Amino acid sequence: MTGRDGGAEIGPIGNSPVVVLVRPQLADNIGAVARAMGNGGLFELRLVAPRDGWPQERAWRNASGADRILDSCTVHETVADAVADLHRVFATCPRPRHIVKPVLTARGAAAELRAVCGRDLRAGILFGPERAGLDNDDMACCDALIRYPLNPAFMSLNLAQAVMIMAYEWWTAEDTTVPRRLMTNETRVATKKELENFLGHLVVELDACGFLANLPKRPGMVRNIRHFFLRGEATEQELRTLHGVVTELARGRRQRGRDEKPAAPPPQG
Amino acid sequence: MTGRDGGAEIGPIGNSPVVVLVRPQLADNIGAVARAMGNGGLFELRLVAPRDGWPQERAWRNASGADRILDSCTVHETVADAVADLHRVFATCPRPRHIVKPVLTARGAAAELRAVCGRDLRAGILFGPERAGLDNDDMACCDALIRYPLNPAFMSLNLAQAVMIMAYEWWTAEDTTVPRRLMTNETRVATKKELENFLGHLVVELDACGFLANLPKRPGMVRNIRHFFLRGEATEQELRTLHGVVTELARGRRQRGRDEKPAAPPPQG
Repeated sequence: MTGRDGGAEIGPIGNSPVVVLVRPQLADNIGAVARAMGNGGLFELRLVAPRDGWPQERAWRNASGADRILDSCTVHETVADAVADLHRVFATCPRPRHIVKPVLTARGAAAELRAVCGRDLRAGILFGPERAGLDNDDMACCDALIRYPLNPAFMSLNLAQAVMIMAYEWWTAEDTTVPRRLMTNETRVATKKELENFLGHLVVELDACGFLANLPKRPGMVRNIRHFFLRGEATEQELRTLHGVVTELARGRRQRGRDEKPAAPPPQG
Repeated sequence: MTGRDGGAEIGPIGNSPVVVLVRPQLADNIGAVARAMGNGGLFELRLVAPRDGWPQERAWRNASGADRILDSCTVHETVADAVADLHRVFATCPRPRHIVKPVLTARGAAAELRAVCGRDLRAGILFGPERAGLDNDDMACCDALIRYPLNPAFMSLNLAQAVMIMAYEWWTAEDTTVPRRLMTNETRVATKKELENFLGHLVVELDACGFLANLPKRPGMVRNIRHFFLRGEATEQELRTLHGVVTELARGRRQRGRDEKPAAPPPQG
């Protein structure tokens, strides 16, 4: 979607969970995981027994600048070793097995991770190998499983996509952006009085040109025009533009009326 | 994370938004987009002027079975053509330009898309090219922009990751999974009475072995043990296991006490 932002700008923000990739197979995926981590504000990556060894140049090539995350990544022989210093460990698991375990949604997990990290405890999120997923011993090292609500008819989720969803939920768990706003830049949303001024101007010109000449229908026609112009949350700048549009359209008609009679009526429809 | 689920199972679920990729560059990404769409329950893909033409075999190879989405994908010359039959069109835009436009979060957009599609209107979501993003004319074709809340220090988002986040939000917008549940399979969460039975059994054995021999401290010690066993939401099966653990540990001590005196006290610490 956009170019590189440069690795230099990525840095830890407070106490965020560690991402643990268990027996990852493809270096491309490890790079894409680092990029997704950077997107969502996760910075510490640990690898358990990566299949092709470590480091792998392809990871850096696929990280789009999230180099710092790869540079500081550590390699561990076992899951137990990778999580030894952590206090709370969740494991992503698309199809939970027959075990007794808490199961969280991604959003529920993000809220709990925020709560854990806010207590200055260290948390981790385990992601299994591309094909097989985590095994039963891996899951026995974890406090809870995370299962994403996704289309049950097509659960095949790429490893970096799985990390992206958790990283995104981690970030949005403390995000306060309003769901919808109007980006107005130099202008601002118009007041009711400003809108009323424009509608008054428009109606005067519509009366003058004969558009509202049917007097029994006039009140309803004016209301319908009001309904339309109220729907779009006009800005002050846009109302000035619309004033100009009405003025210029009317001026053309008036000049024509003053200078000459048109040769023929304007085309209909 | 898991293997293929097979393309045969993917199919439209109700009226879902169309995904429009504008001037996409890499066939790999188009395939990964199809896979992410399938994960999140989006099924209709349109391409506007794909750089390397269409179809591209690499897309199918990278779609992990989301073949149906690629098979039915259509190609269009312009954005206007691709959205001509739609009623509401949103455009993802990581860095909105100086235009007056509503800006939605991904979650806000998903809620509005659900509302639009619920009215039997057709909606679309535009995603720009990998490097440059959408241009100003593309955005002028859209009703609103979508901007994901993500780490502002590292916004470089892969195209398929961008689609994954919207597809995930689309799916979760109507998902009702509880944020945390206990997966218990054949067993169930224990009642307070079942827990009380176990704690009673434990305290009897702890009295018998002398662990609670310090009578002034006994009430506090019993309460602390209660606090621990209450924290974990035990299942009925787990309490039966714990009854067995206590019984067997106690039996060993009793047999030793009956048959012989131990040669030495057990090691401390």
